[in-house]
Amino acid sequence: MKNSKIYGGIYTKGPSKKTDQFIMDPTMTVLENKLTPYYLLETIAHNLMTVKHGIVPKKSAKKILQNLLKLLDQAKNGQLVDPLIGDVHENVEKILTESIEEDAGWFHIARSRNDQSVVDQKLFTKKYLLDILEELNKLENILWKKTELYKEVVMPGFTHLRSAMPSSFGFWWQAYLDQILDLHKVLKSIFEIYDKCPLGAGASYGVNWKINPKFTAQKLGFSKPLNNALSAINNRGIEDANIISQLAIFLTILSRMMEDLIIWSLPELNYVVISEEFTTGSSIMPQKMNPDIAEKIKSKSAKLIANLNHVLIAMKGTPSGYNRDSAESKIAIIASLEETLSTILIANEMLAKVAPNPEVMKKGVISSLPTKLADELVKKFKIPFRTTHKIVGKTVSLANGNILKINNKTVEKAIKEITEKEITIDQKLVEDVFNVKNALKQYQYEGSAGPEYVSKVNKKLNKKIESLNIWVKKQKNKFIKAEQDLYEEVTKFINS
Amino acid sequence: MKNSKIYGGIYTKGPSKKTDQFIMDPTMTVLENKLTPYYLLETIAHNLMTVKHGIVPKKSAKKILQNLLKLLDQAKNGQLVDPLIGDVHENVEKILTESIEEDAGWFHIARSRNDQSVVDQKLFTKKYLLDILEELNKLENILWKKTELYKEVVMPGFTHLRSAMPSSFGFWWQAYLDQILDLHKVLKSIFEIYDKCPLGAGASYGVNWKINPKFTAQKLGFSKPLNNALSAINNRGIEDANIISQLAIFLTILSRMMEDLIIWSLPELNYVVISEEFTTGSSIMPQKMNPDIAEKIKSKSAKLIANLNHVLIAMKGTPSGYNRDSAESKIAIIASLEETLSTILIANEMLAKVAPNPEVMKKGVISSLPTKLADELVKKFKIPFRTTHKIVGKTVSLANGNILKINNKTVEKAIKEITEKEITIDQKLVEDVFNVKNALKQYQYEGSAGPEYVSKVNKKLNKKIESLNIWVKKQKNKFIKAEQDLYEEVTKFINS
Amino acid sequence: MKNSKIYGGIYTKGPSKKTDQFIMDPTMTVLENKLTPYYLLETIAHNLMTVKHGIVPKKSAKKILQNLLKLLDQAKNGQLVDPLIGDVHENVEKILTESIEEDAGWFHIARSRNDQSVVDQKLFTKKYLLDILEELNKLENILWKKTELYKEVVMPGFTHLRSAMPSSFGFWWQAYLDQILDLHKVLKSIFEIYDKCPLGAGASYGVNWKINPKFTAQKLGFSKPLNNALSAINNRGIEDANIISQLAIFLTILSRMMEDLIIWSLPELNYVVISEEFTTGSSIMPQKMNPDIAEKIKSKSAKLIANLNHVLIAMKGTPSGYNRDSAESKIAIIASLEETLSTILIANEMLAKVAPNPEVMKKGVISSLPTKLADELVKKFKIPFRTTHKIVGKTVSLANGNILKINNKTVEKAIKEITEKEITIDQKLVEDVFNVKNALKQYQYEGSAGPEYVSKVNKKLNKKIESLNIWVKKQKNKFIKAEQDLYEEVTKFINS
Amino acid sequence: MKNSKIYGGIYTKGPSKKTDQFIMDPTMTVLENKLTPYYLLETIAHNLMTVKHGIVPKKSAKKILQNLLKLLDQAKNGQLVDPLIGDVHENVEKILTESIEEDAGWFHIARSRNDQSVVDQKLFTKKYLLDILEELNKLENILWKKTELYKEVVMPGFTHLRSAMPSSFGFWWQAYLDQILDLHKVLKSIFEIYDKCPLGAGASYGVNWKINPKFTAQKLGFSKPLNNALSAINNRGIEDANIISQLAIFLTILSRMMEDLIIWSLPELNYVVISEEFTTGSSIMPQKMNPDIAEKIKSKSAKLIANLNHVLIAMKGTPSGYNRDSAESKIAIIASLEETLSTILIANEMLAKVAPNPEVMKKGVISSLPTKLADELVKKFKIPFRTTHKIVGKTVSLANGNILKINNKTVEKAIKEITEKEITIDQKLVEDVFNVKNALKQYQYEGSAGPEYVSKVNKKLNKKIESLNIWVKKQKNKFIKAEQDLYEEVTKFINS
Repeated sequence: MKNSKIYGGIYTKGPSKKTDQFIMDPTMTVLENKLTPYYLLETIAHNLMTVKHGIVPKKSAKKILQNLLKLLDQAKNGQLVDPLIGDVHENVEKILTESIEEDAGWFHIARSRNDQSVVDQKLFTKKYLLDILEELNKLENILWKKTELYKEVVMPGFTHLRSAMPSSFGFWWQAYLDQILDLHKVLKSIFEIYDKCPLGAGASYGVNWKINPKFTAQKLGFSKPLNNALSAINNRGIEDANIISQLAIFLTILSRMMEDLIIWSLPELNYVVISEEFTTGSSIMPQKMNPDIAEKIKSKSAKLIANLNHVLIAMKGTPSGYNRDSAESKIAIIASLEETLSTILIANEMLAKVAPNPEVMKKGVISSLPTKLADELVKKFKIPFRTTHKIVGKTVSLANGNILKINNKTVEKAIKEITEKEITIDQKLVEDVFNVKNALKQYQYEGSAGPEYVSKVNKKLNKKIESLNIWVKKQKNKFIKAEQDLYEEVTKFINS
Repeated sequence: MKNSKIYGGIYTKGPSKKTDQFIMDPTMTVLENKLTPYYLLETIAHNLMTVKHGIVPKKSAKKILQNLLKLLDQAKNGQLVDPLIGDVHENVEKILTESIEEDAGWFHIARSRNDQSVVDQKLFTKKYLLDILEELNKLENILWKKTELYKEVVMPGFTHLRSAMPSSFGFWWQAYLDQILDLHKVLKSIFEIYDKCPLGAGASYGVNWKINPKFTAQKLGFSKPLNNALSAINNRGIEDANIISQLAIFLTILSRMMEDLIIWSLPELNYVVISEEFTTGSSIMPQKMNPDIAEKIKSKSAKLIANLNHVLIAMKGTPSGYNRDSAESKIAIIASLEETLSTILIANEMLAKVAPNPEVMKKGVISSLPTKLADELVKKFKIPFRTTHKIVGKTVSLANGNILKINNKTVEKAIKEITEKEITIDQKLVEDVFNVKNALKQYQYEGSAGPEYVSKVNKKLNKKIESLNIWVKKQKNKFIKAEQDLYEEVTKFINS
Repeated sequence: MKNSKIYGGIYTKGPSKKTDQFIMDPTMTVLENKLTPYYLLETIAHNLMTVKHGIVPKKSAKKILQNLLKLLDQAKNGQLVDPLIGDVHENVEKILTESIEEDAGWFHIARSRNDQSVVDQKLFTKKYLLDILEELNKLENILWKKTELYKEVVMPGFTHLRSAMPSSFGFWWQAYLDQILDLHKVLKSIFEIYDKCPLGAGASYGVNWKINPKFTAQKLGFSKPLNNALSAINNRGIEDANIISQLAIFLTILSRMMEDLIIWSLPELNYVVISEEFTTGSSIMPQKMNPDIAEKIKSKSAKLIANLNHVLIAMKGTPSGYNRDSAESKIAIIASLEETLSTILIANEMLAKVAPNPEVMKKGVISSLPTKLADELVKKFKIPFRTTHKIVGKTVSLANGNILKINNKTVEKAIKEITEKEITIDQKLVEDVFNVKNALKQYQYEGSAGPEYVSKVNKKLNKKIESLNIWVKKQKNKFIKAEQDLYEEVTKFINS
Repeated sequence: MKNSKIYGGIYTKGPSKKTDQFIMDPTMTVLENKLTPYYLLETIAHNLMTVKHGIVPKKSAKKILQNLLKLLDQAKNGQLVDPLIGDVHENVEKILTESIEEDAGWFHIARSRNDQSVVDQKLFTKKYLLDILEELNKLENILWKKTELYKEVVMPGFTHLRSAMPSSFGFWWQAYLDQILDLHKVLKSIFEIYDKCPLGAGASYGVNWKINPKFTAQKLGFSKPLNNALSAINNRGIEDANIISQLAIFLTILSRMMEDLIIWSLPELNYVVISEEFTTGSSIMPQKMNPDIAEKIKSKSAKLIANLNHVLIAMKGTPSGYNRDSAESKIAIIASLEETLSTILIANEMLAKVAPNPEVMKKGVISSLPTKLADELVKKFKIPFRTTHKIVGKTVSLANGNILKINNKTVEKAIKEITEKEITIDQKLVEDVFNVKNALKQYQYEGSAGPEYVSKVNKKLNKKIESLNIWVKKQKNKFIKAEQDLYEEVTKFINS
């Protein structure tokens, strides 16, 4: 019986089999296997520390570490956790006991599964988060290039999903770039706060040994060790919520981008084309190409928001110190990281191939030009905007909403009706206003859709992209190097 | 290339491999495999209908059905869906094409994957929901018995997690029984509304064939066919939300029960004992028995609330007719059903073995008795309650909160201080009030914790339990029989 | 000092002023005022019961009831609750004490604010829920009529927001009707379960008096009294979640309807027109009419889903018996009821005036017809559907996606390319398939968009609408009559 | 008719009254009034810019600004928004038109209500967020002092809500301090990203005038102007979600602290005392002091998580450019800020007065000491921990869980039973292990509960507190100074 062997001093019979199964249910088993390589890294670092600080005899430590290195190789190729035996820790301790017998008794000392679980989860998270941040960088580059490419391709800018003011297709890409760069910066600062090693927290209050948390933190590639054992454990779920909230916000931003594309690629509108590769056909309707990828990316935001709820609700009102409730965070964070990564990968491919139909866009832009007429009337005749706003409303009305029918006479008539004044309007003024070529000309400051100013802003944004790129590369190298160094140091110790 | 083979008439190249992989990601693959037996049942019923109504040639139909029966056997033992080929439909159509070639061309007619998916999901849901309802019935029986068993075991009743008024351990069990019976009734009425068959909805608007939705509905054990193809498809996610909301509420109720047990089994309180079987030990602390199962049941509510969010958020604001967004419902409903079922199974086992410590409870109940003194003073001396409330507050205060120290003199002194009157209090009155044996005697109506009245209510509740039991048995039989009948009818047809 | 006056026997100083303010914060104050009329009804019924059962002296009861009737009149015209004094109960007890002095001491007996709060909240909820159900009935009638009116107005049916199969505008209205009738039925059964009176639950365990919960339940218009004091209190939040979940699902359904309308009324599509009355203009863009109401209705679903979360999260893991956490339910349920009612009121007005552009729809429907061609080829030439699906895909492709360009030659060419066979296609067959007049002809069963069958289903649905109408009228009358009867009985008693 | 006056050029009748009422519902009216002072500041800055850049005639601008200053004074004392007239903008424009007639026509130019709304919301948010951050600083100081004060007050450290390992009361405070400092840092970085001014975004694409967004940004105390008009508008809701997510996480952390205090102050445990001031009494039970404030703080987390959902769900899948959906963010962010601020204010007061019962804690700590015995046996006899873990489990078992009964003989017997070896145990070793005075001695590294190390960590944390304090003071000054400067500059201009 497993529990009598490993944890059961005080038990008469031990937990029932069903209890074990409920704790290590199929979901948890899948996750434990995903975490196994990180568990092994972490336990190797810990065992190296315990022998270096005289807690564990050298002889036993060598055997333990030799076997752990072997298991690390195995874990990278297959599934090590048998749920009937228990979690990853129980499995590994059992394997060790079978192969090195008594020496395995020194394997679990000066730590608890509580602090280990948090470390394993953190290593997994750091790995995935850095991958996500790297892909985010790629996304930013795509958005940046699209901005440059399409900054002069005029299109109607929408509000309330109605043509509102002229915009450019490039301006739309830049808007998302700007939002995502902000998010990226927050994620970076969250990563930096997250990057501390909980090893040494023990059950939640520390361990009865003079251990060296700085050593293990450094070996595992963390920036710093824990400050307080209890906060290290209490942070489980909380720190995950922090990360998931940003991923949920990210996918919410993407969901809006996808909604734009799904609507704009409606055959009835035909403003943009989603490449065939990213659509799917129908089993019944032969003519269909469905924007399936865009829809799925959009709906992923629902899952991420749900994951955020999952972890926050699980943690809300739980007492401090480890509780089983915090294990829910494992489910939520792993799913969130995996789903975000797979989503951004396909999003990057799809977005890179999205193309506009500039001619269709041009036609569409006309209905967004009336505000310009109102502003021109202000400039020319010093009529207050509130009045020209009414004049132009009336003008559109007189033309039955068909803007192409508006000419100087229509405007004159509208002026008369609204102000009871007679003003002569030059037909050229009307033509200039409704000439699509001039659509973006009045946007004359950074932040507006004026192409020149879009370029100026893009230069600034490019610097941000580059600095975030350098940062993520540095972090990834640090992460990879720590693993290599640990491997070397352990091998050297075993052979010493 | 898969898509050119099955869905691709209009495509030049077809969806990219990454598109296929993103659509049939690992999560979806697991779920498709879970749904496969239900898919096969549904597709068998549909093919039987198409041949019976002259849509498909008999010869082809026989081959198709023969192969589908074979696949059904296989599906019960293993995983049939290869994500590289596509969803379950694409896989089965491919297998058929390989084995019966041209005749397989008649397999997919007069339907769409859209209506099929909803049917499959519904069959799965009905199966699991009936299992859950059956277990709910067991839970009700446990709660009912515990109520009877412990209705005279006095314990402090809590408000604000502070001893408030006397209660009994049985009364606590009955409170949960009452809540769960209400929930059970709602779930039953939701089941009845849910129990209609969407087959025939096609893509979302019907199919160009004179099909017979009543026939397939009946063969698959549904009460009725669809009313409107579009609502049948639009209901995906919506009907799931309906069910998940009840499961989430159920687990929220259970979470409160678990919180009670976790706190009451605190060694410092020791009011109840959670059987050792349902606790787990610690890898570091040899003395520990953690209420792990109770904690995990409690935190499951977080997952269910999250699932409810998942499906509602995914559906919110999506256009009508099938959209990929609704596929999210598959993830949410399957997880919700599986998690609720596994939770209720272990909860039933654990709850059946929860036991009180009556002696400890008796001691605890004393602090809940002061209100009784206030009420007795009203009855005896016709002093308004608002005044006796103050008198008793003062009395407790004079005894420094130690209720056992209160005697007739304390009460007299308090009366004096509050009312400036002198009233002689019989020490017997005080003793009777604070005698734990009398704790429940004043509760004299149905709904109160008076043991006799708890029994009366229990009789009524028992009738509800029985009627729900009969109902769920009937539904299960209907569900099972439909499958058997279908099997027989198809076999007969093949051999005809 | 308030607390020493009313609740403070045991306190030395009492709660701080800031504590009182935090408990009765501005949000709570607004809500307490909304609940005041229901509080007064409830407390009148209770006081009538206590005097009838000899708990309270007649003389005092008369004075109390006289004053409560007066307050009820006041409460209907203004705000009675002063947060500095406390909740509604504390305010009313204070007012009574000031006007009838000692007799007010008999006001609060044989009950607790805990059970009162639940009753008040329930009365408010029942009132609003019945109003909502009545409006739901109106909505159903609108949907029903629109279905009849537009069942022959063909339009493209969408899947993945792409033209998929022919549909009718009426069919779309019916789909929502069908969904909402299901929801209505669930809400009805939830209402019936909800309709029990918690008065008598006291703090959570009953009161030390032989009270008569049946009497008060009946006087307040409830179907039945409580079963168990603890479940009556524990149900707070839980029963609210039950109702809010249905309202959230309702608004999620509406959100999809609004999304359809917002997109279909895009000037670029122009399939439907939202009446000018339900749009708003822009402060800057004179040409705009924004579908503001539709957008706001759509986004209300977010608030309702949030409210559902609010109440479930607040209750999750709280111990049994009254806790302050359950007061959160007051915020969530009142907001949910008010927002749903105001939403359905405007939705009903707006929907009644939504109109189609049948000519535009007819043009749009053409792109949804290819499946019909595939089905016709099956019927005519006994080619399996999987093959005709490919043929039609190819046909569309040969016509460069322009369906109007397809003729018999295009089809023949596609057949050749796919099957390598030569088949002569009658141009009439092609014309018939792509003739919009025939678009709905092949839909020949209930559940499909065939107009005749839509009518058949509508007849069934009408019966449901009527029976729900009768039910809601009955409930409303019962509710109103109970209040009148109570008023009369109390007046009679006062004058006796 | 309002709309014909201000926005209605194109309308024939204009929005219906009910439309106006639904848009400006009671919730929105309350919020608009709260935002009014910020609206006025923003509009003053904008009008100053338009006149300085020659867009508006000086004469008109003077009149406008004069009136706006007057309204600002009024707005600080009362409610300016009449919902029948419209939103704050419509109200102010109407007031201006009534008092300065034609000149008011120049009031609304080169901007849209869309960008204004975001600015107003941002100013409100910045103001409240800085107040919250200031209070957070106070909270940190309280936690810091409590840590110092109680770092040697031993208490049982819990896991799974069961006594686990020895801890100190101070260590518990520090754990929360550490978590909150992390959160504070994230909030600070979010604030810095948030601190950019959207004025100039217009409807969503810029305005047709050469405006100066840097000028208005600076006048309003923002760090920088917008980068892209569309992202400035799209960020509404998204940036709010960012902030709300941190506030929700903060309240989730507080909810756990409150749960600890509620349980630890259970009379049955009596580890800590919540001051009487922060409890409330009962209307029925005279003996009660309920931890009402702690409960309400705990349940506030539910509201904040709900608000986070509200805003994310509202934004999910909405098209880019302004939509009404984003107005939901106004509801969510204002409620979140107000509730968080009121919560932290009372939490700070309550926490400052929480006190331990050191003697009770000491008794409680004994059950947490067995791990120490296991570790001591490793140190002394070089027995592997896995074996000593079993020995100690057996030891506790032999003493029937009563740790005070354990002596050297019990341990010797356990060793014999587990290892079959005879080892003599010094009674002194057992006494030392179970002597509460030694409870924290073995914790010998930073991060553990060893008092000396808690102090070391506290020194580091103090530096963080101070630097955050300096930062928040600087930001507040900047915010206040900008308002004063703007006031002066405008006054000067009017008088010029």
